Amino acid sequence: MKTLDTCLSPKLTHLYDVRDKTVVIVDILRATSCMVTGIANGVRRITPFADLEECRMMGRVGYVIAGERNGEKVDGFDIGNSPYNYLEEEMFGEKIAVTTTNGTQAIHNCREAKEVLIGAFLNLSALAEYLKRQERSLLIVCAGWKGRVNLEDSLFAGALAEKLADQYDQSCDATLMVKSMYADAKGDLVDFLRQSSHAERLKKLNIEKDIEFCLRVDEYKVIPVLSGTDLVKL
Amino acid sequence: MKTLDTCLSPKLTHLYDVRDKTVVIVDILRATSCMVTGIANGVRRITPFADLEECRMMGRVGYVIAGERNGEKVDGFDIGNSPYNYLEEEMFGEKIAVTTTNGTQAIHNCREAKEVLIGAFLNLSALAEYLKRQERSLLIVCAGWKGRVNLEDSLFAGALAEKLADQYDQSCDATLMVKSMYADAKGDLVDFLRQSSHAERLKKLNIEKDIEFCLRVDEYKVIPVLSGTDLVKL
Repeated sequence: MKTLDTCLSPKLTHLYDVRDKTVVIVDILRATSCMVTGIANGVRRITPFADLEECRMMGRVGYVIAGERNGEKVDGFDIGNSPYNYLEEEMFGEKIAVTTTNGTQAIHNCREAKEVLIGAFLNLSALAEYLKRQERSLLIVCAGWKGRVNLEDSLFAGALAEKLADQYDQSCDATLMVKSMYADAKGDLVDFLRQSSHAERLKKLNIEKDIEFCLRVDEYKVIPVLSGTDLVKL
Repeated sequence: MKTLDTCLSPKLTHLYDVRDKTVVIVDILRATSCMVTGIANGVRRITPFADLEECRMMGRVGYVIAGERNGEKVDGFDIGNSPYNYLEEEMFGEKIAVTTTNGTQAIHNCREAKEVLIGAFLNLSALAEYLKRQERSLLIVCAGWKGRVNLEDSLFAGALAEKLADQYDQSCDATLMVKSMYADAKGDLVDFLRQSSHAERLKKLNIEKDIEFCLRVDEYKVIPVLSGTDLVKL
């Protein structure tokens, strides 16, 4: 039976052999929520960069450059890390180069996987339906916060695992943990997340509107997939 | 207010500055359960080694040598990693040098902490009472399994955090996770752990008796503490 494992921090990805696996990258607040939103709204391709300066250079070759560090837009970049940036009409058909504190690093670490998909609450059911039908084992990689585990990505992992309970062997301890937590939290995700250190951190940056958006479930049906160096519509 | 953080894998300890903290090391199955049992039963000192061969050498200078890798006793060592080994009468007054797959590595990573304590379900309440009264911030370090997070150490972290809820700020996301899981599991710990990959792994080694022992709560009142290179009675 295909297996579903959960990796709670990008600092632990080296413990998993991803080469024959499908990997779902999760950075709910806000990188992967932005990616899903962008691709759903007609952004042509999104190229993730782990390195800030490499990303910045793409501005010279026709890319919209999106840069975030520590929750804030980086000086000199066109946009930051709000899903509302990706909803703007002028993004339609654009190529975006993006670097963020956690999410793009996680993608970088897993680039050798057979398939890299982008997950968020925004495309939860579409992603689950696709994964039910495919054959490979799955690793959910939570982007966390600077290597530490976080609540929102772990909750998403729990939500996805719950949807895939009949299709995957889920005896991995981290998966059992996130499923248990999700079962506890799903009645009121927003309320549960209110305890989170990261939500608290982002609140200080006045992006409560973003948080509300990123926790919407099944807003979109698209699944961004890594094709070469770029995220495109699956 | 003093803070309580939880580190779910020894591969993430470098993300925390432990130098001004008290660290509790947890490896329920079975390293820290053995250490508590040994110190409670009159073992004079226990010296943890990350390296197998360094540990083996201590046999030549009068130490009982305890060695485990992948759940099994290492050839040529006096004892393995069963708490029943530490209960034997002839261990009274002895010095034991020990190396295990996970637990002794976690201790090694945190040796610069202001204070390193050993925790297990066996000494849960004694540990909690001591921690309530002290002033430093606390990091609970779960030994996990080869860098991956595991259920039993995470559950212990949740149990300890729950006992310290009024004394420590617990806004760290990993702590919120383990507390949520513990609240779900505490009605029947043994049953909850039955799902665990590691429990499954150990079961194959015929050590169900050890598992039952390691899940006993408050069997002992001692707290092993790292003094120089050795664990002794606090």
